[in-house]
Amino acid sequence: RTIIPNGFSIRKIELSDFEDVKIVLAGLTTVGPITLCTYETILNYWNSVKLMNKPSEYAYNTSVIIDDHTHTVAAIGTIFVEQKIIHDGGLVGHIEDIAVNSDYRGQKLGKLIIDYLSEQGEKLGCYKVILDCDVKNVGFYEKCNYNQAGIEMQTRF
Amino acid sequence: RTIIPNGFSIRKIELSDFEDVKIVLAGLTTVGPITLCTYETILNYWNSVKLMNKPSEYAYNTSVIIDDHTHTVAAIGTIFVEQKIIHDGGLVGHIEDIAVNSDYRGQKLGKLIIDYLSEQGEKLGCYKVILDCDVKNVGFYEKCNYNQAGIEMQTRF
Ligand SMILES: CC(=O)N[C@@H]1[C@@H](O)[C@H](O)[C@@H](COP(=O)(O)O)O[C@@H]1O
Ligand SMILES: CC(=O)N[C@@H]1[C@@H](O)[C@H](O)[C@@H](COP(=O)(O)O)O[C@@H]1O
Repeated sequence: RTIIPNGFSIRKIELSDFEDVKIVLAGLTTVGPITLCTYETILNYWNSVKLMNKPSEYAYNTSVIIDDHTHTVAAIGTIFVEQKIIHDGGLVGHIEDIAVNSDYRGQKLGKLIIDYLSEQGEKLGCYKVILDCDVKNVGFYEKCNYNQAGIEMQTRF
Repeated sequence: RTIIPNGFSIRKIELSDFEDVKIVLAGLTTVGPITLCTYETILNYWNSVKLMNKPSEYAYNTSVIIDDHTHTVAAIGTIFVEQKIIHDGGLVGHIEDIAVNSDYRGQKLGKLIIDYLSEQGEKLGCYKVILDCDVKNVGFYEKCNYNQAGIEMQTRF
């Protein structure tokens, strides 16, 4: 259902995206001195965690929007699927680590990645998809069909 | 560090907790017609998901506070550990599905389970632990050493 604009494609994250992914995620928060080896270990770990009732599907689904001309990562985002007891052994999708490359702002790629991940959550059988955001981004997520559900609380170590 | 009051103990969720767990979680939200078989399948699934860098540790950690005299489940809660790329391949703990048995309210068991799960998150190497709650529970979580970090947004299917 999600319509991908001309000149872009969406696919699963790959090993070759390493340098681009670091740059794009640095626009969201601290990336730190992650090595290619750690990055590869994470992608392999993510691929090892399957869904309980659909062992061909992944719990961690990280997608990138690619600029078809330059092969650059224009945006990135993850949906992680959590297995619960409540809701008859229900699934909740957690959208995480959404970032748009600063060279690609104003092209609605943020909404595109959210729409894509939300649709993936629905297809995987989630009864809801949730995400945490800054107060200033509430309006953006409302345009993506999300509504306010509660308060995110944190403790840091 | 977490001090467990006399007459109670904390342990990992077990198969034999099934009937109690359904009752306690029903105080939080819809549990639905979950069968013992589904419950067992979930506990086994949870035990199958390990941490990337600590393969002897679990990603899903659900604990129950037990009344030592009656062997009843007095409270329940989960910390799920998410593997990220950001923060140098960092871990985030998600506290989920906190519920206190209505017969055990006013005994600070809610704070006890939060303290216990938060400590577990720290020990497992999380750089932060987060949770989503209703506006009316913000004060409670502040007493548990949490502060407001953002807004939870949701979309339901
Ligand atoms: C929807 C979305 O992308 N939310 C992100 C969250 O996924 C990410 O993990 C966090 C990192 O912030 P931190 O570096 O302070 O943990 O920022 C935002 O809350
Ligand atoms: C800290 C805590 O326990 N938060 C819970 C969350 O873990 C649970 O999954 C949700 C269920 O609500 P739902 O039935 O509307 O999905 O309620 C609360 O947000």
